[in-house]
Amino acid sequence: MKLNCDLGESFGAWTMGQDERVMPLIDMANIACGFHAADPLTMHKTVSLAVENGVLIGAHPSYHDLAGFGRRSIPHTPEEIMALMLYQLGALEGFCRAEGTRLVYVKPHGALNNDMMKNPGLLETVMTAIARYRTGLSLMIPVTLGHEQHQAMADQIGLPLILEAFADRAYDDDGLLVPRSEAGAVHRDPQQIVRQALSFANKGGLHSRSGKWLDLPADSLCVHGDNDAALEAVRSIRQALAQHSP
Amino acid sequence: MKLNCDLGESFGAWTMGQDERVMPLIDMANIACGFHAADPLTMHKTVSLAVENGVLIGAHPSYHDLAGFGRRSIPHTPEEIMALMLYQLGALEGFCRAEGTRLVYVKPHGALNNDMMKNPGLLETVMTAIARYRTGLSLMIPVTLGHEQHQAMADQIGLPLILEAFADRAYDDDGLLVPRSEAGAVHRDPQQIVRQALSFANKGGLHSRSGKWLDLPADSLCVHGDNDAALEAVRSIRQALAQHSP
Amino acid sequence: MKLNCDLGESFGAWTMGQDERVMPLIDMANIACGFHAADPLTMHKTVSLAVENGVLIGAHPSYHDLAGFGRRSIPHTPEEIMALMLYQLGALEGFCRAEGTRLVYVKPHGALNNDMMKNPGLLETVMTAIARYRTGLSLMIPVTLGHEQHQAMADQIGLPLILEAFADRAYDDDGLLVPRSEAGAVHRDPQQIVRQALSFANKGGLHSRSGKWLDLPADSLCVHGDNDAALEAVRSIRQALAQHSP
Amino acid sequence: MKLNCDLGESFGAWTMGQDERVMPLIDMANIACGFHAADPLTMHKTVSLAVENGVLIGAHPSYHDLAGFGRRSIPHTPEEIMALMLYQLGALEGFCRAEGTRLVYVKPHGALNNDMMKNPGLLETVMTAIARYRTGLSLMIPVTLGHEQHQAMADQIGLPLILEAFADRAYDDDGLLVPRSEAGAVHRDPQQIVRQALSFANKGGLHSRSGKWLDLPADSLCVHGDNDAALEAVRSIRQALAQHSP
Repeated sequence: MKLNCDLGESFGAWTMGQDERVMPLIDMANIACGFHAADPLTMHKTVSLAVENGVLIGAHPSYHDLAGFGRRSIPHTPEEIMALMLYQLGALEGFCRAEGTRLVYVKPHGALNNDMMKNPGLLETVMTAIARYRTGLSLMIPVTLGHEQHQAMADQIGLPLILEAFADRAYDDDGLLVPRSEAGAVHRDPQQIVRQALSFANKGGLHSRSGKWLDLPADSLCVHGDNDAALEAVRSIRQALAQHSP
Repeated sequence: MKLNCDLGESFGAWTMGQDERVMPLIDMANIACGFHAADPLTMHKTVSLAVENGVLIGAHPSYHDLAGFGRRSIPHTPEEIMALMLYQLGALEGFCRAEGTRLVYVKPHGALNNDMMKNPGLLETVMTAIARYRTGLSLMIPVTLGHEQHQAMADQIGLPLILEAFADRAYDDDGLLVPRSEAGAVHRDPQQIVRQALSFANKGGLHSRSGKWLDLPADSLCVHGDNDAALEAVRSIRQALAQHSP
Repeated sequence: MKLNCDLGESFGAWTMGQDERVMPLIDMANIACGFHAADPLTMHKTVSLAVENGVLIGAHPSYHDLAGFGRRSIPHTPEEIMALMLYQLGALEGFCRAEGTRLVYVKPHGALNNDMMKNPGLLETVMTAIARYRTGLSLMIPVTLGHEQHQAMADQIGLPLILEAFADRAYDDDGLLVPRSEAGAVHRDPQQIVRQALSFANKGGLHSRSGKWLDLPADSLCVHGDNDAALEAVRSIRQALAQHSP
Repeated sequence: MKLNCDLGESFGAWTMGQDERVMPLIDMANIACGFHAADPLTMHKTVSLAVENGVLIGAHPSYHDLAGFGRRSIPHTPEEIMALMLYQLGALEGFCRAEGTRLVYVKPHGALNNDMMKNPGLLETVMTAIARYRTGLSLMIPVTLGHEQHQAMADQIGLPLILEAFADRAYDDDGLLVPRSEAGAVHRDPQQIVRQALSFANKGGLHSRSGKWLDLPADSLCVHGDNDAALEAVRSIRQALAQHSP
């Protein structure tokens, strides 16, 4: 069970996150590509930091919307989606080349991620873009109850999938995250977070908010590094996984 | 003697150039990378067009200045130059990957090109960025009387150079282009343009405006495709080179 | 019956439209504000050109999307809509101040215009923004069969409305434009265009594509100046209105 | 002696400064206009906050360079400077209108400020832009030993000047700020900061680093609100000015 984190989200004079502190604690870095966050210098520094820490590098491409941080859903043609994916994957790999490494996977950001999970045509375009960029490059998507269909689509395109879950978010009976606007959506209790991480790691799923069992075979847990509590949670998850994983 | 042309300089709803008409006439396409011109979709289309026509693909990176078309000199640190080069080279190569080809060379655009030819420290940073991106990737620079120093710097970095000249511009005694603001800076006479192209191709130089011989061993001539006269000039140069080159 | 036209849509090195040719033929200029088109210098030149020709100046604000030319629908909160309206109205009026004139009306551009005509909440936010900017500033919107509701909403906010129609577009039975994707959506016949302009001017409406009479009391006709045929149509409409209006 | 502060420098999801904490302590707010910092919503919130606190509103226009935070010197023609000034002044005043107030002064930001203080032609263009925007609008510039020439230029254009100084920066014998790169450039001792503020307020100048008296008749002191120490310094300056000013 790998830990992944969104990183490199500073922009020019503006700082976001605590990349130096969280990078040593994770396995996979989802690095912003300049469309929702990150100027080229920030990207270079983030790739260097990942390489120093032996962390796998993933592209975190987005709709082009700095002021909206990639969180606004912007309609695009398939040709435009193809182009914005190739542009951002290539741009990030420019820094990988300079640092002697390469891109391992892609995790779309924000509204692009949400939109592709609702729209199979968009998901297929995203998958095709990644496969056209390079055979063997993986796509990281949220694990849902529809993961077998996602896997089938990916198999047809010849694309490896990485299924992602959240240790600190409640899940609904339909296997989706409880919206942040609802009470209980985000776990604050460190022990509950660790329990959920272990449930994904050892049991291949978790109980929904209402108690229903959900088969959600995650490959990676998304963690955060914005504040001390988040960093502490990451350390606890790492330790628990090391001790209690089979 | 190869013909190169700046291409892919449309942006969104705005069209510039006549890429479809000039691409079949050239050998090397300097393709904008989104910082002075070109959105991702324009880049993808331009790379596809180059591949269809068997034209070598060069990156045409720039300072980030769409409103100024990359023509304004913007001060950067070496780290920023390194980063903006790697970003744009990678971004363009994303499209090359999707189209089954690869980047062959880099020709900096506008103010970045001018600045690096005046500032050896900047030139060295540009060269280093390209060499770090990939061994064997070439840099295209204007041929000047200082070409031996440029070659020495490139050799030390391990970077192939492509020396570029202009068939339609007058040269000064110091081997530089006569500024456009001066009368006679740009040749309009098609026969004069063809004569100058042949002089570069067969004699390794040309006579300056005042009649002084200049040794300028160019590998490539920069041509334009914006209008009918420019396209006609390219055709004439191609034909003359085919007939009269050794 | 006033003629209005979208103008000032060049950006940096990219030219769009033929503003110098169409400006003398119109009454009202909808001037881009930098979010879908126009850099500040283009805006200044366009405002100057309008003043020289005695043309009323309208702001043509948009979602912030240069690469998409403001044609992509981007979700915003009401607070964001308020802010992007005030920003663009003020920015354009900066040039009006320098040229000794003032903003007279506002016509939202592209996707923002489409979205507000479908979403009464968004329309109310747009109206409120304009009224908060300055009492007496008008909003130009497409005239539809719902124009009385639009007028009622505007009255409540204290906002003058200008109702706009198209002489060169077919209308459906529901009073909306026939989509461009359908055959017959755009009139090419100059005489038909002039007849439709006169019908709006003298009869307060027109017959739909299927022959149904539509009461559409337009105050202004939107014209175009991109090419010779468009300019000729504008001249014909002007002449016909001068001769045949009551 | 008024206190001024640069504010509204957040952008989208990125926060900078502590505007809510410093606004109650100052007299004049230099508000970013979207070119080096601030999206429209941030501008609206900052103007509202200034109005709530009875703080005078100044525009803080910049070269257009978000990634460089307006700190890079970008060459422009006088027409471009005129246009970028008018655009940003107008944009900020859009929010002033909505909040029932108006723009009082203009303080150019970063590289634009530095460049105009070195280049009299640029300073004259900046002054002319402000005067063309509205008679009576003031320009805030750093007070230097050349303040009489600046005043003469402003008088000729009909522009009120506000002369600004720094309580927390050492001055050289030539009346300029000691560069930040040199030791002792920035005062850390709160008492020294207060003494320098009082010297500007009561004596019309200060002693340079080497002990030379400098006549620098400042109208306003620039303060900062980024951290607790800065906020404490502002409170101390306010208190000292209230007690010890004539």
